[in-house]
Amino acid sequence: MGKQEKYKPKSISGYPEWLPEQRAMEVRWMDMIRETFESYGYCNIETPSVEELDALLAKGATDKEIYTLTRLQAEEDDSSEARLALHFDLTVPFARYTAQHFNDLIFPFKRYQMQRVWRGERPQKGRFREFYQCDIDVINIDHLPLHFDAEMPLVMHEIYQKLDLPEKVQIRMSNRKILIGYLQGLGIEDVQMTDVTRVLDKLEKIGEDAVAKELVDELGLSPDVAEKSLGLAKIKDAGEGLADAVFALGVRNETLDEGVEELSFVLKALSHLPKGDVIDDLSIVRGLDYYTGTILEACFPHDPGFGSIGSGGRYDDLTGSFINKNMPGIGVSIGLSRLFSRMIDKGYLEFDGFAPTEILVVQPSDDQYACALETGQILRKRGFNVEVFHTATKLKKQLAYAEKKKIPYIWFPPFADGKPHEVKDMQAREQCEADPNTWSPENNEKSPMQKKM
Amino acid sequence: MGKQEKYKPKSISGYPEWLPEQRAMEVRWMDMIRETFESYGYCNIETPSVEELDALLAKGATDKEIYTLTRLQAEEDDSSEARLALHFDLTVPFARYTAQHFNDLIFPFKRYQMQRVWRGERPQKGRFREFYQCDIDVINIDHLPLHFDAEMPLVMHEIYQKLDLPEKVQIRMSNRKILIGYLQGLGIEDVQMTDVTRVLDKLEKIGEDAVAKELVDELGLSPDVAEKSLGLAKIKDAGEGLADAVFALGVRNETLDEGVEELSFVLKALSHLPKGDVIDDLSIVRGLDYYTGTILEACFPHDPGFGSIGSGGRYDDLTGSFINKNMPGIGVSIGLSRLFSRMIDKGYLEFDGFAPTEILVVQPSDDQYACALETGQILRKRGFNVEVFHTATKLKKQLAYAEKKKIPYIWFPPFADGKPHEVKDMQAREQCEADPNTWSPENNEKSPMQKKM
Repeated sequence: MGKQEKYKPKSISGYPEWLPEQRAMEVRWMDMIRETFESYGYCNIETPSVEELDALLAKGATDKEIYTLTRLQAEEDDSSEARLALHFDLTVPFARYTAQHFNDLIFPFKRYQMQRVWRGERPQKGRFREFYQCDIDVINIDHLPLHFDAEMPLVMHEIYQKLDLPEKVQIRMSNRKILIGYLQGLGIEDVQMTDVTRVLDKLEKIGEDAVAKELVDELGLSPDVAEKSLGLAKIKDAGEGLADAVFALGVRNETLDEGVEELSFVLKALSHLPKGDVIDDLSIVRGLDYYTGTILEACFPHDPGFGSIGSGGRYDDLTGSFINKNMPGIGVSIGLSRLFSRMIDKGYLEFDGFAPTEILVVQPSDDQYACALETGQILRKRGFNVEVFHTATKLKKQLAYAEKKKIPYIWFPPFADGKPHEVKDMQAREQCEADPNTWSPENNEKSPMQKKM
Repeated sequence: MGKQEKYKPKSISGYPEWLPEQRAMEVRWMDMIRETFESYGYCNIETPSVEELDALLAKGATDKEIYTLTRLQAEEDDSSEARLALHFDLTVPFARYTAQHFNDLIFPFKRYQMQRVWRGERPQKGRFREFYQCDIDVINIDHLPLHFDAEMPLVMHEIYQKLDLPEKVQIRMSNRKILIGYLQGLGIEDVQMTDVTRVLDKLEKIGEDAVAKELVDELGLSPDVAEKSLGLAKIKDAGEGLADAVFALGVRNETLDEGVEELSFVLKALSHLPKGDVIDDLSIVRGLDYYTGTILEACFPHDPGFGSIGSGGRYDDLTGSFINKNMPGIGVSIGLSRLFSRMIDKGYLEFDGFAPTEILVVQPSDDQYACALETGQILRKRGFNVEVFHTATKLKKQLAYAEKKKIPYIWFPPFADGKPHEVKDMQAREQCEADPNTWSPENNEKSPMQKKM
């Protein structure tokens, strides 16, 4: 090995990395999310981190920033292989998976997927380029009942509730058909549709006047049409009055009516949730091309600038890009990393210990090493997380290690044959004789071991 | 969206992807591994999937095939950012992490890490290019007791035991210092060392004669030296006779003696394990440059051609490539994907259901939809995994769905107000009245729900 200049380690912009106590919390969040998904009968899959570039572009999602892979030691004959790229979401890989494994799946296929995704953006403050998404989706053959459109926000809502965040989360819902049907009714051409919806999407961020100005000045809409477009986007939290509010604007057509009916069905199915937790909001648009019906996003209503912490919608044509079948789908994605890092940045999280260790077995002397090891194994078999101190150094040093790591119990194996074991409760500062085969923490209430006892 | 030619989904060579029932098993394996790691007090971390290329090459590990990333929509000013590459193992990122977060960690720093790694190899049958590794490592400041060298194979052994594989696994151990010291004693130059060890490493695969021939013909060793080199590599399962067997070969020096002493210490600490589970094997070499002492690998002794299913060793100088401190480390890595895919290929695994669902609540009619949903929520809150059938279709169709998914219990909400709930045990083919607030499966023994009750 040749001598090299020393590489100075540093974090890479957009690639979050947590300390052990933070990661322990992230794992707890993920376990809870997983359990919740499974409690609704969703099964887990994982897809590779990469797809063929052609698969990612199958639905024309070229606005997403994509990372492609290159082999460092590539030979010239490499061109034979398709170009590989890291996935930018979990929906396109899921649609590809469903088409590819069609014959091995049971439909409606309900799956969850919790993986990292990548966005090959330029380094930018506050933008993640690698982050976790936690998704549930359903794809069915030919027909997918609206009941699933209601189940998605319900599961999402349950997860935000269980996270017990100190900030209120709101889920906002719309239906692509409402906006599309309405804008069509106003005479807006299909080619302009994307631009108009993109501008309307900014309503909450830049305000009514700025949106109106942009619609007129940049997209060339007449002031009247611009105002009417805004009229729809301003409908929010209309609840049972949704249909009346929309129809009062004077546009009616089949697409619009269908959208209103679907959104009303979904909102009704969720009406048992606390008021304001799930609302209609006709300004939301969602950037992805593949959505066709229900769309939703979760946000902090008091901080609209932060953007969404979860989102999703119905994509009736996506899987059809991979297979000659009609396979409608719907899903939502919880932006775990975005949400978790915000809680860290705001200082909202209280972390437990650095390590999962519950008991430190001290090593009294080299002679007693075998006995310390055996004690550790006995306690581990009984379900405790146990470290045996790694060397027979001064007791004071071993205790200092336990203190630093906030290990709640210290176990003293016999210092000599015939002597008893002892255990010390570090919080209560009490020490007593104990048998590793039968001991259990007295104070179950506060003990981290409670879950295992 | 423009019309495009349909992309035909296919698997990508080297990127494994499992069906839902297989993935459920993989998750169970990973949960067990995680619990075992934590039972020894190791804390979890995750590092980003990418490192700066310079970090990966800090220790000169250029023989590894590396994938670098390119932004699909890269601009010209991109050159300002360092080149990013996917990590090829979890050891180098861990060493970088430890150096970078030095002030926030508690030493000895014991961590586990279960992540995908990537090897940018040419597509090749049977070679993974993306796979999971499950690693534990310890890094300390200045001195790392040999006790950890014994703990690594102990934890590894426990995990292979718990997996209850139908094939015997053996952990084989050596120490770099033995081989290096011995070869130095034979007068082999440092520059030739890597080549000689690489050839000796093939002993089990190609046999004694072929190795001797290669050492003489290709590396130019004298037949005498070649034979003496082989003499050491042939020492295997010597147990307590290890030192005698090595010293009988007639070479002695400080490095060799140190290696023998260290390996003997570790083997003695593991002597309580079943005979043959952990043995000395002086032919093993491990390819990675960074190992300096203890080395080990796990394999199927009856199928040496399959190669290792876990490996590791001590790397006293790796972290020092990132920080001006002396920070010895040791760790092992379980090749989860390699092991898991072999068990699948051999047909050794028996899978449970397709989905985690324990109870299917049928939807008797549109009128009873709200009642079905509520019943589902009650059962979920009590810890069951519950699906509410997604549409009020014919009962026969709903039951067929449950049958296909092997859902063990069917719940019938009242078909009309005032009627009772009923539940059917699909295995026992028995149906009876039940209250969602109090019901529990009678046959706890065989029920998948037992864990939650």
